[in-house]
Amino acid sequence: MYKFYYAPGTCALASHIALEEAGAAYQAERLDFKSNQQNSPDYLAINPKGRVPALVTDKGVLTETPAILAFIAQTFPQAGLAPFDDAFRLAEVQAFNSYLCSTVHVAHAHKLRGYRWATEEASFADMKRMVPKTMGNNFALIERGMIKGPWVMGETYTICDPYLFTIGTWLEGDGVDVSALPKVMAHRSRMLERPAVRKVVEQEK
Amino acid sequence: MYKFYYAPGTCALASHIALEEAGAAYQAERLDFKSNQQNSPDYLAINPKGRVPALVTDKGVLTETPAILAFIAQTFPQAGLAPFDDAFRLAEVQAFNSYLCSTVHVAHAHKLRGYRWATEEASFADMKRMVPKTMGNNFALIERGMIKGPWVMGETYTICDPYLFTIGTWLEGDGVDVSALPKVMAHRSRMLERPAVRKVVEQEK
Repeated sequence: MYKFYYAPGTCALASHIALEEAGAAYQAERLDFKSNQQNSPDYLAINPKGRVPALVTDKGVLTETPAILAFIAQTFPQAGLAPFDDAFRLAEVQAFNSYLCSTVHVAHAHKLRGYRWATEEASFADMKRMVPKTMGNNFALIERGMIKGPWVMGETYTICDPYLFTIGTWLEGDGVDVSALPKVMAHRSRMLERPAVRKVVEQEK
Repeated sequence: MYKFYYAPGTCALASHIALEEAGAAYQAERLDFKSNQQNSPDYLAINPKGRVPALVTDKGVLTETPAILAFIAQTFPQAGLAPFDDAFRLAEVQAFNSYLCSTVHVAHAHKLRGYRWATEEASFADMKRMVPKTMGNNFALIERGMIKGPWVMGETYTICDPYLFTIGTWLEGDGVDVSALPKVMAHRSRMLERPAVRKVVEQEK
C-alpha cells in the first residue's frame, strides 16, 4: 500500500490520476498548503524539498512528477500507461512530460511563486503580467505539434495524458485564451469522461 | 548514426557525455548561440522549441535532457547507464534528473534568461541577484542528501552523473561558494578522470 501526498490544485493531480488508472493500492494524504504543512518538520522528513507529490513506497520515497508517473507505469504494466518496450516511444513520452515540468509548470509558477527567483514586489508583478503570454506560447506549441490525438501519444492513453490535463486546468486562471486551443480543450473533455479522472477530481475537491 | 545538436556551455553537455560513454555512433553538430542559430528556420524545423540538446534518430527527433539520457541508457544497455530492470531505482534516477531540469537548471536560467519570465530590466537584475542563493540552496540539498557516493546513485555510474557534472560546471559562474560542497566537488574531479568526459569537454571547447 503506497502513501501518496498531494495538495489540491497542484501538479500532484497527475500522479493521483495515474495511481487510480493503474489500479494501485494507495492511501491519499492531503497537505494543507494554506497552513504551510509542506514545510512542516514531519513532511520535510518525508520530502526535504517541501513539495508535492511524494509517493511513499516500501523501498523508499519518490518525488518529482515525471519520475512518479514513469514508476507507476512500469510497476503496473497491465495498465499500459507507457511503452517501456520501445525506447524511442518511451523517450517521446518522457520528453513531453519533461517539457511540462521544466518549462510549462515553471512558467505557471511565476504567477504566484515569484519569490522563488526574486525578492522585489515589482518583479513579482512583472512576472505575473507575463504568465498569460508564456503559458499561451507553451500551450500553442503543445496544440500545434505535441498532441497526436485522441490522446497525447496517439491512440494509446499514457502518463502524458493526466499530466497535460492537470497543467491544463490552470489555463483559465493564468489568463490564457483557451478558445485558441481546441485540441487541448477536446483532450480535457475526453479526460473528464474517464471514471478514474472523475473520481480523483471529486476526491481532491 | 545519430545527429546530436548542442551548444557549448549548455546542458547538452550531459547527453553528449552519455552518448560517448555508451559508445554510440553520433555526429555532433554545434550551434552558435551568439548568432541565435537555435532560432533559425533550419533548426526550428528540427526542434520547434529552439533549444538544445536535440538528438536526431532514424525514428524521429528527441528533445529534453532527461528523456535523451534515458533513451541512451535504454538503447545501449551494455553501458549500464540506468537500472531499467528495477522500477524503484530507475525512478530514483529519473527523480534526480527531473530535479536538475525543473528546479536547478531553472534557477540558473534566471541569471541570463530572465526575459523568459519578465520584461523589466529591474526584474532581470533582481533575479540575477538571487541566483547565488537559489543555486546554493539547491546544491546544498544535493550535497546533503542526493549523492550516495562515489557516484550519484552509489557504486554504479548512471545518467545522473554527467547531468550533475554539467550543471555543476555553472556553480562558480553563478557565485556559489563551492567550498561548502565537498561531495559535489569530489564528484566533479571523479568525472574529469573519465576518458569519455575528457574527450567531450575537449571537443566542446
